[in-house]
Amino acid sequence: MTGTVHGVGLGPGDPELMSVRADRLVRGARNVAFFRKAGRRGQARGIVEGMLAPGAREIPMEYPVTTEIPLGDPRYNQLLSAFYAECTERLRALVQAGEDVVVLCEGDPFFYGSFMHLYTRLSGVVPVSVVPAITGMSAAWTATGAPVTWGDDVLCVLMGTLPEEELARRMADADALVVMKIGRNIDKIRRALATAGRFDAAWLVEYASMGGQSVMRLSEAGEKVTPYFSIIVVHGQGRRP
Amino acid sequence: MTGTVHGVGLGPGDPELMSVRADRLVRGARNVAFFRKAGRRGQARGIVEGMLAPGAREIPMEYPVTTEIPLGDPRYNQLLSAFYAECTERLRALVQAGEDVVVLCEGDPFFYGSFMHLYTRLSGVVPVSVVPAITGMSAAWTATGAPVTWGDDVLCVLMGTLPEEELARRMADADALVVMKIGRNIDKIRRALATAGRFDAAWLVEYASMGGQSVMRLSEAGEKVTPYFSIIVVHGQGRRP
Ligand SMILES: C[S@@+](CC[C@H](N)C(=O)[O-])C[C@H]1O[C@@H](n2cnc3c(N)ncnc32)[C@H](O)[C@@H]1O
Ligand SMILES: C[S@@+](CC[C@H](N)C(=O)[O-])C[C@H]1O[C@@H](n2cnc3c(N)ncnc32)[C@H](O)[C@@H]1O
Repeated sequence: MTGTVHGVGLGPGDPELMSVRADRLVRGARNVAFFRKAGRRGQARGIVEGMLAPGAREIPMEYPVTTEIPLGDPRYNQLLSAFYAECTERLRALVQAGEDVVVLCEGDPFFYGSFMHLYTRLSGVVPVSVVPAITGMSAAWTATGAPVTWGDDVLCVLMGTLPEEELARRMADADALVVMKIGRNIDKIRRALATAGRFDAAWLVEYASMGGQSVMRLSEAGEKVTPYFSIIVVHGQGRRP
Repeated sequence: MTGTVHGVGLGPGDPELMSVRADRLVRGARNVAFFRKAGRRGQARGIVEGMLAPGAREIPMEYPVTTEIPLGDPRYNQLLSAFYAECTERLRALVQAGEDVVVLCEGDPFFYGSFMHLYTRLSGVVPVSVVPAITGMSAAWTATGAPVTWGDDVLCVLMGTLPEEELARRMADADALVVMKIGRNIDKIRRALATAGRFDAAWLVEYASMGGQSVMRLSEAGEKVTPYFSIIVVHGQGRRP
């Protein structure tokens, strides 16, 4: 009997924001796999702290690189590709030996998630099922205390890794904005928002729904260095009776 | 002692996709308010069927209009505005009498949700707290069995109520697309997708995560009339090692 790989979205960080299904799968899991940076506990693993069954087998999958090699460098793709192939192999072997494996995913697995790289490699080989989840951006706009989209508002989700001109053009063109993957791109993102005339309306949310959550206007953030878990939100202003 | 209004996102429809917090608040609620069309059970109320505490007070809030009057007609705004004011008044009175009220919300409350109209009217008057949730679009792209965004993909969320030219322009300009509020706009949306060269890549998901879920290529949907709970998804094709 072959098992199943469950890609389980855990939501934005607060364990109470996990779905009832995710909660059940995590508590019942015999095998729990998760990505992490070498030497770190791993964000996804942190969310489920205290929830794993006694005797659950933990399968950390440690990224060979994170920001040491630039994204554009061909070695980056080669290293990551070999890494994902190796992870796939480990999970495939377990599942074909009859085990179910829960892969812990931050936020929603199919929304810019690392699990997608395992999913495409495992699909069609072993049974894979995916549990959607609350995204980081939902927690971020909730934390700002204001709805993000009204009426016919257009929402555009942008990665801070895009070129400045493209960011600025798209920021000017949409009603509501979400910017993710900020980190060392913060200065470029500030300039793009200013060019687009959206800087004063932008909010910076760090660690949405996690311990240490902070919410401020970007214009009041000063020269702050933003953590990996940061999202910029610009609210839409559409029709509202 | 004043109570609290809790705007509780219930997620896309499957009760197991409610968050642990939403589940707890709904089961514990003494007062449960929800929007519905006159004469219907109400989608949000349907999700929590069997979960309400014995003796919970139910507060249906029935829309005075839905599609009978066109969006552009000034009477539409007047009627809805009076309706939201009246609902606000009912909830305010209860909460100021010391009761907590749970307002049931489909999907995420701050993402194109009706609760937002109560939220802006109640904020600053009585305590209001909001629980984010899994959006309909997350359930929709999960149902397609393929990740929606990769690498630097730009995701654009569009309402089918927008003009055809604007839809087509934005559909051509983004990597990944989500189209909501489809209904009687379906033919316009088809034409816009075709103009943008995205028609063949589009998926139609009806009733995502609900009983009766259906997933098909839009090109295979024929002249099908789509229900209110329909979402079109076009997946991004970005960087993937
Ligand atoms: C690789 S993406 C993963 C997105 C995730 N799958 C989701 O559904 O939100 C990582 C980016 O998500 C954003 N993010 C995710 N969760 C967050 C949170 N709780 N607070 C702030 N940012 C978050 C940050 O911008 C981060 O750079
Ligand atoms: C007023 S908006 C509410 C969106 C909701 N707050 C959310 O977070 O998904 C209503 C639209 O959401 C979409 N929708 C929401 N949930 C859905 C589901 N489970 N299946 C299909 N479409 C859904 C449909 O396009 C519908 O016209």
